[in-house]
Amino acid sequence: MPEDKKKFVAVIGGGQCSSQEAELAEAVGRELARRGVILLCGGLGGVMKAACEGASSEGGITIGILPGGNRRQANPYVQIPIVTDIGYARNAIVVKSAQAVIAVGGSYGTLSEIGHALQNDIPVIGLNTWSLSRNAHPENSIIPAKNPTDAVGKALELIKN
Amino acid sequence: MPEDKKKFVAVIGGGQCSSQEAELAEAVGRELARRGVILLCGGLGGVMKAACEGASSEGGITIGILPGGNRRQANPYVQIPIVTDIGYARNAIVVKSAQAVIAVGGSYGTLSEIGHALQNDIPVIGLNTWSLSRNAHPENSIIPAKNPTDAVGKALELIKN
Amino acid sequence: MPEDKKKFVAVIGGGQCSSQEAELAEAVGRELARRGVILLCGGLGGVMKAACEGASSEGGITIGILPGGNRRQANPYVQIPIVTDIGYARNAIVVKSAQAVIAVGGSYGTLSEIGHALQNDIPVIGLNTWSLSRNAHPENSIIPAKNPTDAVGKALELIKN
Amino acid sequence: MPEDKKKFVAVIGGGQCSSQEAELAEAVGRELARRGVILLCGGLGGVMKAACEGASSEGGITIGILPGGNRRQANPYVQIPIVTDIGYARNAIVVKSAQAVIAVGGSYGTLSEIGHALQNDIPVIGLNTWSLSRNAHPENSIIPAKNPTDAVGKALELIKN
Repeated sequence: MPEDKKKFVAVIGGGQCSSQEAELAEAVGRELARRGVILLCGGLGGVMKAACEGASSEGGITIGILPGGNRRQANPYVQIPIVTDIGYARNAIVVKSAQAVIAVGGSYGTLSEIGHALQNDIPVIGLNTWSLSRNAHPENSIIPAKNPTDAVGKALELIKN
Repeated sequence: MPEDKKKFVAVIGGGQCSSQEAELAEAVGRELARRGVILLCGGLGGVMKAACEGASSEGGITIGILPGGNRRQANPYVQIPIVTDIGYARNAIVVKSAQAVIAVGGSYGTLSEIGHALQNDIPVIGLNTWSLSRNAHPENSIIPAKNPTDAVGKALELIKN
Repeated sequence: MPEDKKKFVAVIGGGQCSSQEAELAEAVGRELARRGVILLCGGLGGVMKAACEGASSEGGITIGILPGGNRRQANPYVQIPIVTDIGYARNAIVVKSAQAVIAVGGSYGTLSEIGHALQNDIPVIGLNTWSLSRNAHPENSIIPAKNPTDAVGKALELIKN
Repeated sequence: MPEDKKKFVAVIGGGQCSSQEAELAEAVGRELARRGVILLCGGLGGVMKAACEGASSEGGITIGILPGGNRRQANPYVQIPIVTDIGYARNAIVVKSAQAVIAVGGSYGTLSEIGHALQNDIPVIGLNTWSLSRNAHPENSIIPAKNPTDAVGKALELIKN
């Protein structure tokens, strides 16, 4: 079980995704698990499922913050389902429970999560995802990564204590 | 008081804003009130306050969906304060309670609201605000407006029945 | 429209109710409207609908804080639907947006609202509703009323400024 | 780590509590851990802290669903902090993420959790806590337990599959 100071990283992205995005997410999940990080996500399919599958394959811990009212909504690789039943307002909880966020692809739900994360000064690392048009806070925007290992490395570096 | 079929439009943007953004927001608020539309917003300062002030000056109705636990948090032009006490997860409620959204400027909180709105197929009209890098849904993105009157006109056109 | 200092009172109770409860709720709604108070509720049927119908019949303003994602969920007497889409976590918002609460009958959802209200020091007046077994805070519990007029009178007296 | 079918039980009660309540909660936590159950709670002090301490002392897993925006708010025995930042609306998430709930003492926040749990057909076992005045649903109310072992036994029996 998690010792006192396990790190928590959220992986966000579409509930449906391309096979390339799934590969990226799975590799992110594996790398997080190898480095002893707990994986948070929205608990559903697509990028979330691929990331949980990757983490599970390396013995990592996976948490799914579900929008609905039933734990069966979770993908099969979620070990700890949190049943919010607050719909997509749960997006804010996914990112706030994390110390850094890795975005893989994603649509408007992912965009809302990026907004909530950056509003709360939680670092966001991007893999093939949104880029932002405004330098709302030049010191705090999406940080592009070259590949899953780079994304995890950058996320862990940026976690504030 | 509102008859059965009053329209609801949200105005979103920064809790702090430039004087140019405040002018745009106030003009949007005035135009909404003149056209009999109920104005929703997050109830705080900046763009929200300017929009409420504009609407009030034309006798319009203003609703503020507050993040905190006390109605005194509302700007003085909010007539109907809704006290959510759920923090910035209330961003999702601001846009879902509206039938169209007008974004004026804005930072990451506004970005999260744009994400929540577009995820729910609620039209978003933009005035000097974010532009989006991905055509997640080509038929559904931020629609730029030339000026406040144009923004309100486009918002009302796009309200689905 | 509401002047600066309109009072807000929530009426809570079952989404289904007996005809006796509906009569009580409707009378509460009428009395609130006559006294210039804005009526908040959960926006659905049963006690909520009866209260809104009563308030509307006297020209009062009615707000419905809906659990679902569509304003059509509101009963026909809700003039201002707030679409939370956070399910029954919205119960906390119904009571926190009010300055006093009147409970008519009700089941477990109502019980959760009574708990949220009293936890926040919002006075709760009861008509044929739960009574509480513990004096968690002797100075702050459900205050029984004899009839709808008495309930509204007590609610307005207890609103703190 | 949790295998597929770990059970989740929430322990609810005051953020401040008597030493007798703390003893009960700690014993509940220990018994849950011995029986391989994951402990959920609101993550703060009082009953929540005592329950987490008990579970941790037996090697159990503890999850804290926090009301605030910072994981440091969690008591030191929470291994998995979930940062909701939605205030006491998080009470609904604490109970909905559980398959059964054990209430130890508690004030109005606990009462709101009992209401949310019973509204969702989640069994509630009580130790020195509220008793309910209405048989809203005669088949579904607070089930009294004689002691912590009895409470855990009843909770596990009542978990539906």
